[in-house]
Amino acid sequence: MYRTHTCGELRISNQGQSTTLAGWVQTVRKFGAITFIDLRDRYGITQLLFGEELNKTLEENPMGREFVLQVTGSVQERSNKNLNIPTGEIEIKVETFRVLNKSAVPPFTIQDDTDGGDDLRMKYRFLDLRRNAVKKNLELRYAVNRAARNYLHNQGFMDIETPFLIKSTPEGARDFVVPSRMNAGQFYALPQSPQTFKQLLMVSGYDRYYQIVKCFRDEDLRADRQPEFTQIDCEMAFVEQEDILNMFEGMVKAIFKDVKGIDYTETVSRMTWEDAMWQYGNDKPDIRFGMKVLNLKKPASVYVQKQPAEELINGAGFKVFDDAETVVAIAVPGCSEYSRKQTDELTEWVKRPQIGMKGLAFIKYNSDGSCKSSMDKFYTEDKLKAIAEAAGAQPGDLVLMLAGAEERTRKAISDLRMEMAERLGLRRKDEFKLLWVLDFPLFEYDEEGNRWVARHHPFTSPKPDQIDTMISNNPSIENAAEYLKHPYANIKANAYDMVLNGNEIGGGSIRIFQRELQEKMFAALGMDEAEQLHKFGFLLGAFEYGAPPHGGIAFGFDRLCAILGGSESIRDFIAFPKNNAGRDMMLDAPATIDDKQLVELSIKLDVKS
Amino acid sequence: MYRTHTCGELRISNQGQSTTLAGWVQTVRKFGAITFIDLRDRYGITQLLFGEELNKTLEENPMGREFVLQVTGSVQERSNKNLNIPTGEIEIKVETFRVLNKSAVPPFTIQDDTDGGDDLRMKYRFLDLRRNAVKKNLELRYAVNRAARNYLHNQGFMDIETPFLIKSTPEGARDFVVPSRMNAGQFYALPQSPQTFKQLLMVSGYDRYYQIVKCFRDEDLRADRQPEFTQIDCEMAFVEQEDILNMFEGMVKAIFKDVKGIDYTETVSRMTWEDAMWQYGNDKPDIRFGMKVLNLKKPASVYVQKQPAEELINGAGFKVFDDAETVVAIAVPGCSEYSRKQTDELTEWVKRPQIGMKGLAFIKYNSDGSCKSSMDKFYTEDKLKAIAEAAGAQPGDLVLMLAGAEERTRKAISDLRMEMAERLGLRRKDEFKLLWVLDFPLFEYDEEGNRWVARHHPFTSPKPDQIDTMISNNPSIENAAEYLKHPYANIKANAYDMVLNGNEIGGGSIRIFQRELQEKMFAALGMDEAEQLHKFGFLLGAFEYGAPPHGGIAFGFDRLCAILGGSESIRDFIAFPKNNAGRDMMLDAPATIDDKQLVELSIKLDVKS
Repeated sequence: MYRTHTCGELRISNQGQSTTLAGWVQTVRKFGAITFIDLRDRYGITQLLFGEELNKTLEENPMGREFVLQVTGSVQERSNKNLNIPTGEIEIKVETFRVLNKSAVPPFTIQDDTDGGDDLRMKYRFLDLRRNAVKKNLELRYAVNRAARNYLHNQGFMDIETPFLIKSTPEGARDFVVPSRMNAGQFYALPQSPQTFKQLLMVSGYDRYYQIVKCFRDEDLRADRQPEFTQIDCEMAFVEQEDILNMFEGMVKAIFKDVKGIDYTETVSRMTWEDAMWQYGNDKPDIRFGMKVLNLKKPASVYVQKQPAEELINGAGFKVFDDAETVVAIAVPGCSEYSRKQTDELTEWVKRPQIGMKGLAFIKYNSDGSCKSSMDKFYTEDKLKAIAEAAGAQPGDLVLMLAGAEERTRKAISDLRMEMAERLGLRRKDEFKLLWVLDFPLFEYDEEGNRWVARHHPFTSPKPDQIDTMISNNPSIENAAEYLKHPYANIKANAYDMVLNGNEIGGGSIRIFQRELQEKMFAALGMDEAEQLHKFGFLLGAFEYGAPPHGGIAFGFDRLCAILGGSESIRDFIAFPKNNAGRDMMLDAPATIDDKQLVELSIKLDVKS
Repeated sequence: MYRTHTCGELRISNQGQSTTLAGWVQTVRKFGAITFIDLRDRYGITQLLFGEELNKTLEENPMGREFVLQVTGSVQERSNKNLNIPTGEIEIKVETFRVLNKSAVPPFTIQDDTDGGDDLRMKYRFLDLRRNAVKKNLELRYAVNRAARNYLHNQGFMDIETPFLIKSTPEGARDFVVPSRMNAGQFYALPQSPQTFKQLLMVSGYDRYYQIVKCFRDEDLRADRQPEFTQIDCEMAFVEQEDILNMFEGMVKAIFKDVKGIDYTETVSRMTWEDAMWQYGNDKPDIRFGMKVLNLKKPASVYVQKQPAEELINGAGFKVFDDAETVVAIAVPGCSEYSRKQTDELTEWVKRPQIGMKGLAFIKYNSDGSCKSSMDKFYTEDKLKAIAEAAGAQPGDLVLMLAGAEERTRKAISDLRMEMAERLGLRRKDEFKLLWVLDFPLFEYDEEGNRWVARHHPFTSPKPDQIDTMISNNPSIENAAEYLKHPYANIKANAYDMVLNGNEIGGGSIRIFQRELQEKMFAALGMDEAEQLHKFGFLLGAFEYGAPPHGGIAFGFDRLCAILGGSESIRDFIAFPKNNAGRDMMLDAPATIDDKQLVELSIKLDVKS
């Protein structure tokens, strides 16, 4: 061993002890004939004092940032203590030292606030990983890993490894594929998730399975997606939805406790998908704050049980609202005093292409109880006040209103709500609010193919009381314009998403476990019998031999870590991430391969130039 | 939840309690109007009693093997107790029951001794996994996983995930590659191990890393290899060989303790590679028993310090020995009474093509002290006795001798030694003996290319006192016939293998951490500068920025589990293994993919028919 202690270990109580440390040179400070060096390792920083007697040796061996150094000396009290760090009361009076390795000058500083840009840090990721900020993220990631494993182990779950070289059954996202040398012309696929394997394990009787496992999706990468990502993947047999919800809110609470020291004692909220969409404009609402959406109009849609407050806006002759499919409002607390400049800026904000609204209407519900609005021409003050109060506004609040096509407007009001919360400091990084979103639609309508697609995945069961609806109806859609009237449009999935602070951190479902129902599902998605058997014959076969009722969930491990770490970017929580083009900048991968490899794999390049 | 208890939980102390169980029908036994069913789940088997009153319902719903059943009833004492199982004192008097799912008749019996052949069991792996024998293996695997993680965690190691989509740098085995859709004509590779990443993590200062991780090698599969396999992968910084040996024999001992309840208190033996080859004929000797090899001749070889007992056989005019490159012997305990038929059978055994010897010589060292041999014509009884005693024989033992070309003969004597131990019952499944094999040659000679290849991998450091030899000599081999005289032939690696009962379960090395030495190593392996930079530029670059001394080890997790489970086959310890052609028989993978996928990936098939 090159050391007797770490750089984070020695205290004033070790005074007088002899010690050997090894680590990296963080800083070198020379005061006349004596030199101070801060030596850094994974555990901390310790100050080294090189006395006059070492001056000559030091001059012969000039020390630089990031040199790897081994020193032996004795622990002594510092004259100039630094009480901000645990080792700040002591220093090592160096007797001998050895440079274990030199370092070139790093391309950026190894500090929390580095001067390195994103690309540079990715290329030199091995140096970026030395920064304390990144190290803390990876330590948090390991703590989450450990907490999840411990909880699941104590609940009787078994970690069972599923294969990585499987069969390509693209459905939704694209598969990454792997040419097989030994089976020319054939390919393996990398798993998008261990979904079918964990279901088979339930058929096999392993009734509580988990894995923290890499998954792969060949998607066009958005800002915060990675082609390979990690899931906490779980499945249970002989359970109903309620059992899964209880088990896994328990897991997340255990992670809060172990990793953040937070006792999350409150009941985890639950909300139907319809309520989430209706009241928050999206299916993963951030419920750390209010500003619920007031719906003033309803389009032909799946929100069958919802009633908009149409009477508040109708009959006023305001063409913008009258012509719109959807009209929505939120009450922003304490903003009635917004200046013209501020409301203009908000109007520009909603008109940006990412939001895509034509304009913004507002009502200032002043502290004195009066109302002022951009729509004064059309609505009396009483009407305005009624709208404001229906939106939940108090005197002093600002009501923001959007109108337009359903999908875009609903997304816009959700984005606006989040934006206002951000501006008002309502999205606190140290506050965590969990939410279950339930009762998703089982199917979505695919206009292009005039057919159904699975909202979650094809293994999700309908609600128990809708299984008959599914089995007894023909999935094909006769009249595309009236797809909403098809019985399948209203089938709800026995599925659940866990939402944390406005991010989906996990999702799952109770699965289909009957061959007949599974075949019906595949058929609804446009798979004929031959395709069903080619792609999922093994699963349909397994359902013939005593498949138990089962269900599960998968958590996005990268995202969960990022949120717990107070970041929105998962890349900061992955040791060696890829960039948005799916490239590893450090390795410079992907790359060309040898012709010999192509020949062995029985493939040829076919690049269109 | 579909149950209140598991099928392994209820005892006589639960008598009178109401309970709901769910599981699989193991057996149905009808006695007149009453029926007994054994219900099975992951936790055990519980007997169900269906009384006369349920007879009619049962007849209307005939029950078969592997049906999934939910029953509610009360716990009662059995009249006919089965004390072999923990639930054997009770049964459930069934009140109501529900068939949750039916089962077709399984293609083989779900029992320890199944009637299913290998192919059938692989195709229906989801049923095979229900068998208790397979379940125990996966439970053991999880226990080993857990024990390793707990030990490493307690020693300050961090689990850090490394990427799966990396760059192809084939060296030794072939890479599996993954075409990149977004980077046409380019490929990722799947890692053969996280080797370079764990080294980068050491450069980054994470001084204790581990991962239980899938690795991939596209090799022609031998009997017990899998294209994807799992490693316990570890790396430490600021360590020397001794630190690694201590740390990881600690890990294996902890696994013995946690998983098998074995206190492995004895010191783990150590042996140099030369001693292993010389004394046991291979580099992973099984030291549960003796029968060390007596060397009677030595070829021109790397065993420079070894002296054979030539005087015992020379000058006798026995042409077989005189003409042979290598002559070796082992003393098999207690077999001096072997009949002619038995020695003939052994002779046939060594003449099989897998062994490839021309014949077998033997000396019977009889209990009365006399010696009889197949070589009586050439050697006096005194000579024979001297050979026998040099081989470590006692009166009553049988000395077996082989002669021939070095490599084949050494392997043959090792195989013969193992075979005799097997026949004599000396390879006990419940006895575990660990061994470190040390001081491997750093290089092997590649005749075809007249160059060096790395015995371990190109990142292994030479012994500290041989670094200069490596740096200061030109690696190229002027005279192929005399390659053994090249200074590189005698450089020893700073590497170590852990051997358990004759199987290599782990191997590793102290790594090169200096750019100059790493470049020299790459050059010795025939890589020019351009190739070095293309393949390993990131690593050479990292060594410029303060790389610490470091080393590590990787354990073959599948193999370790198999040996601990008393099996030689790793397939039995993998949930979804592939067959020897690399196929998943259940999924029927690999398989063809859609033309659309090929087009998107910018590749074409090029299958030679």
